[in-house]
Amino acid sequence: MNLGFIGLGNMGHAIAANLLKAGYELTVWNRTPERAQALVEAGARRAQTPAEAADVDVVFTMLGDDAAVSAVTFGDDGILAARAKPLHVSMSTISTDLAERLTQAHADAGGRYISAPVFGRPDAAAAAKLFVVTAGAEADLAVCRPLFDAVGQRHFVVGDQPAQANIVKLCGNFLIMSAIEGMAEAMTLAAKNGIDRSALLEVLTSTLFGAPVYHTYGGILAEERFRPAGFAAPLGLKDMRLVGQAAEAARVPLPLLGVVRDHLLSAIAREGEDIDWSGIGAVIAKDAGL
Amino acid sequence: MNLGFIGLGNMGHAIAANLLKAGYELTVWNRTPERAQALVEAGARRAQTPAEAADVDVVFTMLGDDAAVSAVTFGDDGILAARAKPLHVSMSTISTDLAERLTQAHADAGGRYISAPVFGRPDAAAAAKLFVVTAGAEADLAVCRPLFDAVGQRHFVVGDQPAQANIVKLCGNFLIMSAIEGMAEAMTLAAKNGIDRSALLEVLTSTLFGAPVYHTYGGILAEERFRPAGFAAPLGLKDMRLVGQAAEAARVPLPLLGVVRDHLLSAIAREGEDIDWSGIGAVIAKDAGL
Amino acid sequence: MNLGFIGLGNMGHAIAANLLKAGYELTVWNRTPERAQALVEAGARRAQTPAEAADVDVVFTMLGDDAAVSAVTFGDDGILAARAKPLHVSMSTISTDLAERLTQAHADAGGRYISAPVFGRPDAAAAAKLFVVTAGAEADLAVCRPLFDAVGQRHFVVGDQPAQANIVKLCGNFLIMSAIEGMAEAMTLAAKNGIDRSALLEVLTSTLFGAPVYHTYGGILAEERFRPAGFAAPLGLKDMRLVGQAAEAARVPLPLLGVVRDHLLSAIAREGEDIDWSGIGAVIAKDAGL
Amino acid sequence: MNLGFIGLGNMGHAIAANLLKAGYELTVWNRTPERAQALVEAGARRAQTPAEAADVDVVFTMLGDDAAVSAVTFGDDGILAARAKPLHVSMSTISTDLAERLTQAHADAGGRYISAPVFGRPDAAAAAKLFVVTAGAEADLAVCRPLFDAVGQRHFVVGDQPAQANIVKLCGNFLIMSAIEGMAEAMTLAAKNGIDRSALLEVLTSTLFGAPVYHTYGGILAEERFRPAGFAAPLGLKDMRLVGQAAEAARVPLPLLGVVRDHLLSAIAREGEDIDWSGIGAVIAKDAGL
Repeated sequence: MNLGFIGLGNMGHAIAANLLKAGYELTVWNRTPERAQALVEAGARRAQTPAEAADVDVVFTMLGDDAAVSAVTFGDDGILAARAKPLHVSMSTISTDLAERLTQAHADAGGRYISAPVFGRPDAAAAAKLFVVTAGAEADLAVCRPLFDAVGQRHFVVGDQPAQANIVKLCGNFLIMSAIEGMAEAMTLAAKNGIDRSALLEVLTSTLFGAPVYHTYGGILAEERFRPAGFAAPLGLKDMRLVGQAAEAARVPLPLLGVVRDHLLSAIAREGEDIDWSGIGAVIAKDAGL
Repeated sequence: MNLGFIGLGNMGHAIAANLLKAGYELTVWNRTPERAQALVEAGARRAQTPAEAADVDVVFTMLGDDAAVSAVTFGDDGILAARAKPLHVSMSTISTDLAERLTQAHADAGGRYISAPVFGRPDAAAAAKLFVVTAGAEADLAVCRPLFDAVGQRHFVVGDQPAQANIVKLCGNFLIMSAIEGMAEAMTLAAKNGIDRSALLEVLTSTLFGAPVYHTYGGILAEERFRPAGFAAPLGLKDMRLVGQAAEAARVPLPLLGVVRDHLLSAIAREGEDIDWSGIGAVIAKDAGL
Repeated sequence: MNLGFIGLGNMGHAIAANLLKAGYELTVWNRTPERAQALVEAGARRAQTPAEAADVDVVFTMLGDDAAVSAVTFGDDGILAARAKPLHVSMSTISTDLAERLTQAHADAGGRYISAPVFGRPDAAAAAKLFVVTAGAEADLAVCRPLFDAVGQRHFVVGDQPAQANIVKLCGNFLIMSAIEGMAEAMTLAAKNGIDRSALLEVLTSTLFGAPVYHTYGGILAEERFRPAGFAAPLGLKDMRLVGQAAEAARVPLPLLGVVRDHLLSAIAREGEDIDWSGIGAVIAKDAGL
Repeated sequence: MNLGFIGLGNMGHAIAANLLKAGYELTVWNRTPERAQALVEAGARRAQTPAEAADVDVVFTMLGDDAAVSAVTFGDDGILAARAKPLHVSMSTISTDLAERLTQAHADAGGRYISAPVFGRPDAAAAAKLFVVTAGAEADLAVCRPLFDAVGQRHFVVGDQPAQANIVKLCGNFLIMSAIEGMAEAMTLAAKNGIDRSALLEVLTSTLFGAPVYHTYGGILAEERFRPAGFAAPLGLKDMRLVGQAAEAARVPLPLLGVVRDHLLSAIAREGEDIDWSGIGAVIAKDAGL
């Protein structure tokens, strides 16, 4: 099975490296070609265009936003222009609207498409410990199973419509924001009553809230470590916008989304574009006069 | 050390039984005396009044609300009328305002007071697996340490002002509600996109959200098991009111509190007083037309 | 018809003066007796206790909060202790809960009670231009009609349960806050786009929003005149708390109430207790980085 | 001065008729040509393409959304393809983003552009009683002054950047929604306390809230006349989306927007696409169990 990989940022590079390590023939493309150098030295083939990287059995895309995925797919020399009609596996956090357009466009072109966004940071990607959330036709998922095993610790099938995997990924990011919001509000109430934020956090994580999301972001909030950003507030805002678009399309009120979205806007307006998305904690504290 | 125990509901009865089992001399009182029968048969002494149950070294109260705790403390034949000036240990979920009044009243009367609310359901209480959150004077906490060991798996000290323990307990309940709210919103978005609620939950609990609060309430939400109530919505509403009072006193905006409070009101108005506090999930689903 | 008047603050003093001017025999009481001096010089009789001021046909109360009204009614030498069983007319902004307790207590004592809160500031009170909102038994309202004519430009009957008038008054204050909130958010959006707040306000008040609430508070917001307070934020917060209690009792979710309440808390926490309730505009602007 | 008019819906048709009546030479275009018939009979010239209608001194567009305005401007045979480089006056409620793109595109093409959205319904348009909100270069506004006089009772200049007029229009619609939200919440609280909605409304409009927005929408809410829609909920939702985009671009949190947006989504999900935007009142009542 020949593979292509488009988008060699921190996440994409690590995933591509693991596919190569697993023994697959791999063709790679990145907008800034230098990012491909290490992979080429490790045995990957360098493509000159996305279309060339897509002249394979399965082509992955791992890019920053809808615009980037659209460009490498629909653009001149894009994936849809490849001679092969590959299975396109999109790992990016994109809108459900784009996922649906990709599904349709590939079907129209005689190709295939599945969504396979991931949970995990670059270190998890490097360690092949990602969680992969997938949706699409069973036959396409079957093709990808060994590939997902090569890059992640587990994969989930959540439906047969590709966009459903994107919904689940967006729900995950929405819930991370929600957990941060809840903790930040509670910590502010505690702090204004003279209680150490870390003391509250220890009670929480020792009892009902002993999950990574509370450990990780609780620690950041308790110590107010909002810079440098692990995931910058404008990126969080972008994801919340995608959640909002999906909610509007499905006619689903999400009151909590309004709250976290406003706090992200306030964090960016008051603290700057470079603050972490957990920086809503700074806004929540200041709103209480801290 | 002689102990007293006032309030023998499901929680109080189980805790009192563990204190007895640990070998302490125990005097008990309950408004409906029959609830004391089993403990008396196991060796406890029955008091005729709260004051009599408080004629000990340490007296516990575990009651439903502020009114009940006030009645057994400030009423005729209440704890403050006891000849001994006991250490009063309040395990109930009460307002910070009452905690402060109790602190003051006991100090004025030559007694002592600490707050020690708990996390855990009746089965955890029976198994001596509670988590006890405490705050108060170090000397008073030292006296109680073996007692907390007899009834819980762990205790936490969060400050030297008793009311601080009540704040932490209220924060915990607020965060449970917040987690339910977040999950219910996400599950509704998923369901309206044809995704099985349980499939979403499995992704969540397998990745960043693998904590009891998500397992327990996620399961209830996915299966819409809102009756019989484990913790009825009006009780949840009462706790959220206490959170609101504490937030108002400390001048802390809590946007998420407004959201969950409104959903609890709607759940009670539309589904009835007997629905579980997680029944806000029913409201959130119906608001989206499900 | 003999009248009594209890509570001679800015509002009460002006109303009492108008009753006197209309020719009624008036007995007055105020906690700080000096406030009664001018009225006594104009012909009023000075009472030594609330009970004495209530030894009349109709006794008015106009006080700052529930506690003050409770004290002059239920206290020793309070209205309920008067020999006469007067008709008690409460003009204060009080809780519906207290209105219901007053209704019951007077009925039990063989007296009568109606609620008659007012809209209007001290200058409107002085000019006998108040709007009086009333509810109660028709016979009691009939007695008061000429009295309301003497102090206001118009009165409204909104129901036969006294507490209903208090609900309407609370709704009015809630809607003032809501209008301020809406304008402040819109003005902030305008200001961040380089549009003069006053230019926006002129468009609004010239088209669909030409009402006193927009003229008055729009001007304050456009010029950011939040001090000195016409109605201080903590008083606004108190009223919003009463709205919240009424909403909780009636099981009515009020999402907008959560928003304005949080902004009032933030205004007090960040700007101080002396800011006007329209000072939520300062908070809304700062949250956007202005 | 030769004029063009593109978009002959209820609003556009009435405005174009008034321009014709004022004596201007008018060329008209509409996607469905029949809509132009009456105007042609009254003396207007029928264009075959938008470009032809734009071959004038000043061309107006009055269309339903961004997509329609984009199509007639940027499309083949669009306004930008006109031989004349007209002054384009956009009266539609469009996004600020599109207003900025139009400003730029016309400048690049050697033409000119101003935004001039209006307040008023079709009957006001027919009576030449619209309110016109404008922004743009002073020279361009000067050209249009007599034209605005021919179609409206008053016009406002809110800035020199065309998009600022769109911001003001969006603020207006946002505040209409906010006023509806506030009234609907207050009426629900009143109704659950046995108070007639109309009785509350009369108190409000007689005192601080005597503006058209309260009279018009208050009456609809009191009588629950949500069908047929004067302005359908999906159109309201679209406008709130534009407000949200402007707020996101300017980094302005708008908590009230979240509330009304969620209620619009719920109204559409539960009541159907054909309900009026004031139909959020139905949702608010049902949420309280009415």
